[in-house]
Amino acid sequence: MPKLILIRHGQSQWNLENRFTGWWDVDVTEKGAAEAWAAGELMKEKGIAPDVAFTSVQTRAIKTLNLALEAMGRLWVPVTKNWQLNERHYGGLTGLDKAETAAKHGEDQVHIWRRSFDIPPPPLEAGSAYDLSGDPRYAGIAIPNTESLKDTIARVLPYWESAIVPELKADKTVLISAHGNSLRALVKHLSGISDADITGLEIPTGQPIVYELDAGLQGERYYLSDR
Amino acid sequence: MPKLILIRHGQSQWNLENRFTGWWDVDVTEKGAAEAWAAGELMKEKGIAPDVAFTSVQTRAIKTLNLALEAMGRLWVPVTKNWQLNERHYGGLTGLDKAETAAKHGEDQVHIWRRSFDIPPPPLEAGSAYDLSGDPRYAGIAIPNTESLKDTIARVLPYWESAIVPELKADKTVLISAHGNSLRALVKHLSGISDADITGLEIPTGQPIVYELDAGLQGERYYLSDR
Repeated sequence: MPKLILIRHGQSQWNLENRFTGWWDVDVTEKGAAEAWAAGELMKEKGIAPDVAFTSVQTRAIKTLNLALEAMGRLWVPVTKNWQLNERHYGGLTGLDKAETAAKHGEDQVHIWRRSFDIPPPPLEAGSAYDLSGDPRYAGIAIPNTESLKDTIARVLPYWESAIVPELKADKTVLISAHGNSLRALVKHLSGISDADITGLEIPTGQPIVYELDAGLQGERYYLSDR
Repeated sequence: MPKLILIRHGQSQWNLENRFTGWWDVDVTEKGAAEAWAAGELMKEKGIAPDVAFTSVQTRAIKTLNLALEAMGRLWVPVTKNWQLNERHYGGLTGLDKAETAAKHGEDQVHIWRRSFDIPPPPLEAGSAYDLSGDPRYAGIAIPNTESLKDTIARVLPYWESAIVPELKADKTVLISAHGNSLRALVKHLSGISDADITGLEIPTGQPIVYELDAGLQGERYYLSDR
């Protein structure tokens, strides 16, 4: 039966500094790299052998995937990278730490942006240091200037359906290395979580989440470290 | 105009130990990893920006590619891995060091195997420690049990034509991370080198070789470190 493993990238420099990251391309820390390697070793120990892998076009998710595959002895697995698996775009919050954001916008407003399903943060201003319009990886893509979780889901799920579901239907074991919110999109879809509840679901870094799926691609999820 | 960059993987453990490697999946050494990183830095410094990349299914070439792309800040580039870019299969010589081989088969015979165009080494024996028939990366592939350089060329060039040429015809900058003999196959083809001369062409590890091509995919090659 098909198996799906989701992994959120290991700790990034801005996870550590408690700053909003979104589409900004922040690397993993040494701890994050170690988390990725350990996730690969855990998968190998538990007999999880991905046939194909998917990731975003962001360094922290790609490196997490590469390190995990290397630890498994499976660097040869085909990997597809796509921007639709990117983190939620945090708009004008990009680069701010949580304290700066609270001082600027107020705790209540920050809570709304972080925890509401469909209210996006203010847009990234044109000319911001975090403007990605010249980044060649996004050539030809309508780069958002902010996203709610709902917006994120709206671009993750079409990619899921078109690129990932066919691999699962072919009975493959699929590994996805991605981000807190692009993975929330998938968990919401697969586990039928409500709009209200999904924003409170925390996905820890570097912890493989496994779905053992039936032919209809339904199934329970568990943390691999719990088995 | 299209640009092609060829890079042989950084030093592997068996390069260091002077053993025949072929399809056996040996990792790069620390020195080899450093060569790969330096190659990426050199490409970045010289303004070489690959749009797509290709590699074999062997760890040493994949890691070399990943390290070079990371050093360039281009881990997001699409990468395709294919066994047809693998090293020449050294058959029954796999795992032997050059001194053991000479003692076993004689210097003259070893020279013939290493330097002839179309004489393969003796086949890998069934049940050898280096038998790859159970390796999942080769599922569905008719794994050779030995190859001459001619045999290697015969599986590299069809892949070149079907997968890589279309990217160059679309004016892309293409990076290939591969092996001494799979790269000889490409250099022979692109630079019109004779059967007699190609076996003497040494391709150093970790040194980007650049072809600036015209629309007919003809052009001169140079070492990027020379420019």
